[in-house]
Amino acid sequence: MTHGVQDASPAPVPDLTHHGDAEVGPGLIDLAVNVRAGMPPPWLRERLIATLDDIAAYPDAGPARDAIAARHGRRVADVLPTAGGAEAFTLIARALRPGIDVRHAVVVHPQFTEPEVALAAAGHVVDRVLLSPTDGFVLDPDRIPDDADLVVVGNPTNPTSVLHPAAAIERLTRPGRIVVIDEAFMDAVPGEPESLAERTDLPGLLVLRSLTKTWGLAGIRAGYVLGPADIIDRLRDVQPPWSVSSPAAEAMRACVHPSALDEADRLARADEPVRQWLADELRRLGGDVVPSPRAPFLLVRFPEGEELRMRLRDAGWAVRRGDTFPGLSPGWIRIAVRDESTMRRFVDHVSRL
Amino acid sequence: MTHGVQDASPAPVPDLTHHGDAEVGPGLIDLAVNVRAGMPPPWLRERLIATLDDIAAYPDAGPARDAIAARHGRRVADVLPTAGGAEAFTLIARALRPGIDVRHAVVVHPQFTEPEVALAAAGHVVDRVLLSPTDGFVLDPDRIPDDADLVVVGNPTNPTSVLHPAAAIERLTRPGRIVVIDEAFMDAVPGEPESLAERTDLPGLLVLRSLTKTWGLAGIRAGYVLGPADIIDRLRDVQPPWSVSSPAAEAMRACVHPSALDEADRLARADEPVRQWLADELRRLGGDVVPSPRAPFLLVRFPEGEELRMRLRDAGWAVRRGDTFPGLSPGWIRIAVRDESTMRRFVDHVSRL
Repeated sequence: MTHGVQDASPAPVPDLTHHGDAEVGPGLIDLAVNVRAGMPPPWLRERLIATLDDIAAYPDAGPARDAIAARHGRRVADVLPTAGGAEAFTLIARALRPGIDVRHAVVVHPQFTEPEVALAAAGHVVDRVLLSPTDGFVLDPDRIPDDADLVVVGNPTNPTSVLHPAAAIERLTRPGRIVVIDEAFMDAVPGEPESLAERTDLPGLLVLRSLTKTWGLAGIRAGYVLGPADIIDRLRDVQPPWSVSSPAAEAMRACVHPSALDEADRLARADEPVRQWLADELRRLGGDVVPSPRAPFLLVRFPEGEELRMRLRDAGWAVRRGDTFPGLSPGWIRIAVRDESTMRRFVDHVSRL
Repeated sequence: MTHGVQDASPAPVPDLTHHGDAEVGPGLIDLAVNVRAGMPPPWLRERLIATLDDIAAYPDAGPARDAIAARHGRRVADVLPTAGGAEAFTLIARALRPGIDVRHAVVVHPQFTEPEVALAAAGHVVDRVLLSPTDGFVLDPDRIPDDADLVVVGNPTNPTSVLHPAAAIERLTRPGRIVVIDEAFMDAVPGEPESLAERTDLPGLLVLRSLTKTWGLAGIRAGYVLGPADIIDRLRDVQPPWSVSSPAAEAMRACVHPSALDEADRLARADEPVRQWLADELRRLGGDVVPSPRAPFLLVRFPEGEELRMRLRDAGWAVRRGDTFPGLSPGWIRIAVRDESTMRRFVDHVSRL
């Protein structure tokens, strides 16, 4: 069962377990993985090293939980630290039982594929709503089936870089439905204007956050879930004990501190002109760039995108193939936005291919 | 449904989620947590610090998997690195579906409680076989119901410190049954004579190992599962991606190196006389020590064990209560064996209480 616009020629079933980290390699400049380059900063690295002094002790995510609650102005009972977003999706898929708690799970695509993989692994039958390039991949709440009782949306969305308005997502929420918003890249949007992390008034709303991307911590697995205490309790019930390691717990404490939030915001603001410039340049070179990108990556389609990606790879540039995301054809590629100098060299290469 | 010897007076339902780390506290000497003191060693700490240079990258457990396979003389397909033993139990409980793959799950108690917790959380109805203090908590394979198709045993067993003969466990294996051996403490037994980690000839045998205890790595979650490739594949299918962090993966590579194995073996040998001396002393003081302890802890029952534990706590010593382990009454306490000087001071305290 699939709602929405299909590509004209049916693509092969995408490999949902493919991720950008599989596309990087020795000697390649990595524009495939959506983790900020040059991170973590020295102050954060020092705090991680300090955790090794007590690494023989079992981890305690309690202080991280308190700090996250304070950062979002929520109760501690509304917070669950997790071993990255990947664990969070698994906990949701397992805690909400297929056919009992969830009868109609809907994932809005194209988006990060792990939520669907986790849901399917837990026995859920997943229905897809495919957003369309002709609409700029913008979320239309009316496209979600009325009887959907679990809806997963990314905001800003990986790989489209689209930031959906909070009001659109708010329209998805209703009693009897759980809405999961993956805000893994929200801290890359200055001011986080469309975040729902602090909204406790919306029923069944779960917000996932990650520290991996902005802070360069993919290797230690650090994220968290915010939501109503009764649902958070159910996720905790299926989380293995000590799931969040000591370095991850310390990173959470460090990265929700006001000084870290200020630093993240400055970095996010500094990225914006580079991203805008890159989008303009790629359009100039014939690329169909998804409008209004707000995340630290761009999604672009070239008439010969698949060939371009291979030629870029031969020239030493790793970009992320788009065709493993449901709803995208092989012409699409996702490009992580790095510093201006790197991106100028990249555009120069693309213009010569 | 419970097979085996019950305590004469039914105890309240034990809290299976209680662990030794909840019993330590500021100012207390920790004999409650079964992690070797003074670890990790400097060389291992340096390797963990080095992983921070590449912590922005997504973790890759592949090299760890190769190294573990080499250490146990097994195929790579027989190995699954996990985020500690706790994740391993969760993966087993989820991959083997209740009522479909497993119809009669049996956990041999007293033992580490997380396997039962994970099985129950995944919907399994868990049957307990309680070993008896009158038999020295020794495994009798004939006590396992014939129709059990999943059996979980610890070896050496936490909290009894009993090392079951490999031959007894071998008798548990048979076609159509999965036998899970938790060897989390096996590397503390010099020479590992009863380990089944390298046995590929026994059907349905899963062996769990941990690096947490010997190497003082509880804070980073490092363990692995060994077993037939078809079962390992099923565990992988339900494991979240990137579940093993980069520091954990590096610790695995480091700790299965022959030089590390030698070091672990030397430490294990050095522990033995202290443990033996402690057992003798506690018996002299009226304690009923479980015979032939082989793990880095002792299980002992005193007539007023519960009161003794509280008085020890008041005197600055944290020991592990036994009564949260199914099959143990409140008189039992578990004592981690530390260095000789610490244990002499401990015995001195006990003798004066």
